[in-house]
This record gives sequence, C-alpha cells and structure tokens, in this order.
Amino acid sequence: MPPSPRHRTCASAPVASDAVTHAALANSSFLAACRGEAQARTPVWFMRQAGRSLPEYRAIRAQHGFQDMITSPELTAEVTLQPVRRHGVDAAVFFSDIITPVQAIVAGVSVETGKGPVIAQPFRTAADVDRLRPLDAEHDIPYVIDAVQRCCAELDPLGIPLVGFAGAPFTLATYLVEGGKSKEFIHTKTMMYADPHAWHALLDRLADIAIATLRAQINAGASAVQLFDSWAGILSENEYRQHVLPASTRIFEELRALGVPMVHFGVGTGELLGAMADAGPDVMGVDWRVSLSAARQRVPAGIGLQGNLDPVIALAPWPVVEAATLATLAAGRATGPGYVFNLGHGVLPETDPTVLTRIVELVHAAGTS
Amino acid sequence: MPPSPRHRTCASAPVASDAVTHAALANSSFLAACRGEAQARTPVWFMRQAGRSLPEYRAIRAQHGFQDMITSPELTAEVTLQPVRRHGVDAAVFFSDIITPVQAIVAGVSVETGKGPVIAQPFRTAADVDRLRPLDAEHDIPYVIDAVQRCCAELDPLGIPLVGFAGAPFTLATYLVEGGKSKEFIHTKTMMYADPHAWHALLDRLADIAIATLRAQINAGASAVQLFDSWAGILSENEYRQHVLPASTRIFEELRALGVPMVHFGVGTGELLGAMADAGPDVMGVDWRVSLSAARQRVPAGIGLQGNLDPVIALAPWPVVEAATLATLAAGRATGPGYVFNLGHGVLPETDPTVLTRIVELVHAAGTS
Repeated sequence: MPPSPRHRTCASAPVASDAVTHAALANSSFLAACRGEAQARTPVWFMRQAGRSLPEYRAIRAQHGFQDMITSPELTAEVTLQPVRRHGVDAAVFFSDIITPVQAIVAGVSVETGKGPVIAQPFRTAADVDRLRPLDAEHDIPYVIDAVQRCCAELDPLGIPLVGFAGAPFTLATYLVEGGKSKEFIHTKTMMYADPHAWHALLDRLADIAIATLRAQINAGASAVQLFDSWAGILSENEYRQHVLPASTRIFEELRALGVPMVHFGVGTGELLGAMADAGPDVMGVDWRVSLSAARQRVPAGIGLQGNLDPVIALAPWPVVEAATLATLAAGRATGPGYVFNLGHGVLPETDPTVLTRIVELVHAAGTS
Repeated sequence: MPPSPRHRTCASAPVASDAVTHAALANSSFLAACRGEAQARTPVWFMRQAGRSLPEYRAIRAQHGFQDMITSPELTAEVTLQPVRRHGVDAAVFFSDIITPVQAIVAGVSVETGKGPVIAQPFRTAADVDRLRPLDAEHDIPYVIDAVQRCCAELDPLGIPLVGFAGAPFTLATYLVEGGKSKEFIHTKTMMYADPHAWHALLDRLADIAIATLRAQINAGASAVQLFDSWAGILSENEYRQHVLPASTRIFEELRALGVPMVHFGVGTGELLGAMADAGPDVMGVDWRVSLSAARQRVPAGIGLQGNLDPVIALAPWPVVEAATLATLAAGRATGPGYVFNLGHGVLPETDPTVLTRIVELVHAAGTS
C-alpha cells in the first residue's frame, strides 16, 4: 500500500502541507477505505451527487447561469455540500466542470446546456498545443481555491472528506481536439496516430494542468482527489498504454508527495482497469458493466475498488434497487477492505434523490459483516 | 463444434432446404473459418462495408431516399455487391436497416438521416407489446427476399457467401422503448427492471421477428447470418443473462437446423462475450476494445472469433493502418483456425475506401503462416 495520507485542516487561507490532521477527519471511513484499512461500515458516496438530481440544486441553478455556479465560491460550496446534508454520504465531491481549468486559460471555451464543453477553435496541430500555457491556480482559478476552503470549513468538523476533482489528460484532450463531445473520437484518434509528437505534447500540458488544479485543491483542504478519465474506455489497452498512460502516471507520481488518497475512474474501462491502475491511484473506480470480482482480478492487490451500481437502477422500483445495492455491496466487500460503495457512473438527473438517501442508509445499516 | 452447415444455391425462387451446395461456395474461406476449419488464407470482410464510405453508394443514394434503398431489391442488391467488387472481400453482408422488419409491421416507424430509427409511439407497456404481430416475411418484406436472391445470383458463382442480417431482440427493444437512439437507455432498463413480464414478452416477439427475417434470408440463399446486438454492451453480465440471453438463445436454437454459420456481435461487449457465446453462435464478433487473446479466454473453444481492428485506425496514415492490421491478424490467427478478420465495429462514413482495399490485400497476402 502507498504511504498513509496526511489530512489537512481547512482554513481561510491555503494550508501548508505540514498542517495537522483534523481530529474528525481521522475517523473518516472513506479515507480509511482508501488506505486499505478495515472499518466499521462501508463508506458510500455518489459520483455527480451534487447537481441536477437535487431540487435544492435546481432552485439555485434557476437563479444563476452554470458559469456562475462554477466561478462563485459561495454557490459552488453550497451545491457541493447539499448532498452531504441530504444523503449523509461519507464524502463530498467538489462541484466543478471537467473543462474549468482549461477554460480559465484558453479563450473561446464554454459549457453549453445539453452539449457540455464547447471549444470554438479545436486543437489539431502542434502549434495549437502552444495555446495551453501552464495553469497558475491562484491567479487563474482563485474561485476554485476559495470554494474548496469554504467546503472544508463546513466538512472538516463533520469528519467528511472533500474529494477534489480533475479531468485526466486524455479526456480533456478529446474535448480540445474534437471541439466538444464526440461519438467516434475521430479527430482525437487521428491526431494520436498521425502526429504522436504533438499528441504527447498536448497530453503533457494537460497533465501539468491537472497537477496544478489538484495540488491547489489539496492545499486548500481537499482530503482526497479523483482523476476522471471519462472517455478512456474508447481505447484499446495497447493504445492506452502507449498514448495515455505516461501522462496520467506523472499526475499520480507528482501528487503522491501530498499524501492524500487518489481515485481514478472512467466509464467503459473494463479492459483498461489494470493499465489505469498502473498509473498509480490508491483506488480504482469501476464502471457498472464490469463485475467487482472481475475488477479485483484485473487491479493489483493493494489498490482499493470503488463502485459500481448501475445509475439507471436507482430509477427502478425500490425492491430492485435494494436487491442490487445489497448485491453490489456484498460483491464489493468480497474484494477486500479498501472498498468504497458508489455508482458505476454519475447520478442521472432523472434520479429521485430520496432513493439515493435510502441507498446510503441501506449501505450503512448493512455494516461490514 | 456444431454440425457443418449446408450451403444452398440461390435461385429465382426460395430454395428448399435440401438444395445442393454450390460448388464455388464450397471453397469459401469465410464459411470454412466459421466451421472452424483451417484455410489457405484468413477471410476478411467489414461490417458496414456497404454504404456511405463508397462513392458508388453515395452516387445511388443521391438519387434515392434511404427507404428506397431498403425496399427496392435492385438498389439493395447493387449496394450489397459494391464492396465485393471493389475490395475483394470474402463475404458480402446484406444491406438493410436493423429496424426494417419492425418497420414493415408497425406504423409510425421511420429511419431519419443522422438520427437512425425513430418510433413515433414508443413501446412502454404490456399493451404496447401487442402492437408487434408476427412477421410474415413473404408478405411483409418481399423486397428483402427478392434482394437476397438477386445478391446470391451474382455471388454464388463467385464463391462469395452472403451474410444475412438482423437485429437482436435487446437492441431492437431499445429502439422501440426509447423511441429511437439513446445514450442512457433509461426507459429500456426501467421497463426491464419494473415490468419484467412485459419486457420478456417484448423480447420474445422480437426474437420471433429476427427468426422470421433470418429464416427468409437463409431460404433465399444467404450462406451465413449475423445477429447484431449492437447495444447489449450497456448491460452488466447478470442483467444480460437474466433479461436478454433467453430470447437470443432461442433465435440460434431455431435457426440451427437451417445449417448455416451464425455470427453474433455487439459493441462494448467485452464483459458479455462469454454470455453472448452461450446464446449459441458459431462465431463471436469482437469489439476493438477487447484484445483477441482476452476474447479467446472468454469465449468457449470451438466458437470462432471475428474482428477487431478499430474502425478509426482506417483513417490513420497507412503505416499505422498496416502495422495495426498485421498485429490484429497475428492476434486473430493465434486464437485458432476459426478466425475472421473484420473491424471491431462498422466502417465509418469518413473512411477512404482505397484503404479498406489495401487492408484486404494485406490480409490476403499475409497467408496463414
């Protein structure tokens, strides 16, 4: 196992890396699971738990544009904290957009409702790579640092860790190269195949950006981070290892010294679990398509697993949800002490939030035996 | 291995099941591979080889609506044969749409450019299932039978088999229940979880429709069939086995007596390869995300493999295409004699057809040693 993370107390200013562990956070079941330690009950949180499934989120969103939600620390902190208050989850995940750090340093990047990130001038050549200057977090995304501090000021005394959030280089590259969301990822793969030099230069810069934003979130108080390589699953393992793994590995290597647990996740990555685990996370997130027992065989011992209830199951009648939750929980526990209950992808907007609360209660009530 | 298929000669009328094997077809490397027999060179064809990548297709399409292409036997046969003439592939695949048989018996079903199948009144309840009456192929889709006969009249003397085409019950159900293409398949899974009785009734009727259309294509001269369960990969293996496998299994069981090789395929089905192989095909198609060696471990011995070059690689510079083709070919051959070279999904419209021809030449030139 990697060295035990040291957890920092939040404060109104960035906290030095030698800050003391907050007493309540020391008892976090989520952080303990990430360290591979057995705990009294299985921790549970949900990817995209903050956001459109919650009426209290929609009430705020009705008054503010999406960009305001991202760049107003007060709003960001509020919607990050909403699911913790409502569901009693064991971790908060920082509310942000995967493109936020890039948007701060590249002109013509927006997030459009129903479309996601849109890049006015797609990145296709080596010359385009130079449009990505290094991220200076305090200057470029001060609202992220501020919002993390606000979150932690409320979360730390509760012993609830904040999970920092960033997009992995490959997934960020798909948005930049395609100009937005994609189905076949033709431009991305074409650049990867036809101009590997420019491709690797692009991923290197995106790795630097991910490092800078996650470092800033950790220094501001995040007790863990999750690196989302959402679309990595479109690649074969050979392609991933050759064209993506080096950049992702550098992120985990450089952040390792900060001492917080690191989770890695992408959808449809069943064939990549072993390769993504080689990048260096403490915990691998597992998509719902892969059984947790199969994931255990593909991910080396010592690396925990997180997942993997199908988000659509949360829309089913409660007996179906209950049976599937208990089956997932049993399968997860069988993989070892470093198991975190979660969905196999993000919460769907159509989800009834009371069902998520019942899932949390069910996981907690089930204990560890 | 299953019993050796008996291949029928095409004629101007449906051919009785005791028709003699056409001499040229008896030497088909594709059919031999499907039977698990070693052959002089690895057979190769491409899913979606007929269609938008070919200028000769687009020239016809410019003069006719898509529905005309599907329901005019002369046009259907022409575009089915185009890639055989151009590329020298070892099999033709019947040009049709996955929704064609359903469209013939349900009102308000259309295929819209860029959107695919659109169902005006989606199927959501048990009562909706009754809108699916049995398919009477000779009455409902005579143009399919006619087109298959026209194709085989040209293909049989060349020794090129025609692969018949149908959508599997699950994938057809996703279109009917969602009303068209989907991303999250919420309505489909909700019906599956919340009303399993209606769900299984729906899949049973869709299995009957697949059986009827494939039986008609085989009787009209198709020497093999491929059952496309394009979207099955959104399900976990448990869900697939419980809610999909029984209906798909019945198709292979009922067609087995007709004695032609049967291929089964879906994208993103790495975790399902073993379960889909249990449905009873002779050959499993493999998506590009899964290594052929991993597929070999998941699919029982005696069932051949087909695939799995990433279609986007065909858009890369030739040295990349060449290296990837040879690597795929080597990996495929290592899986055993029942290997068929193909892409891991359909040909992309953006593909330069001369590259596909070069891939065929490369596969053929490589021989078997």
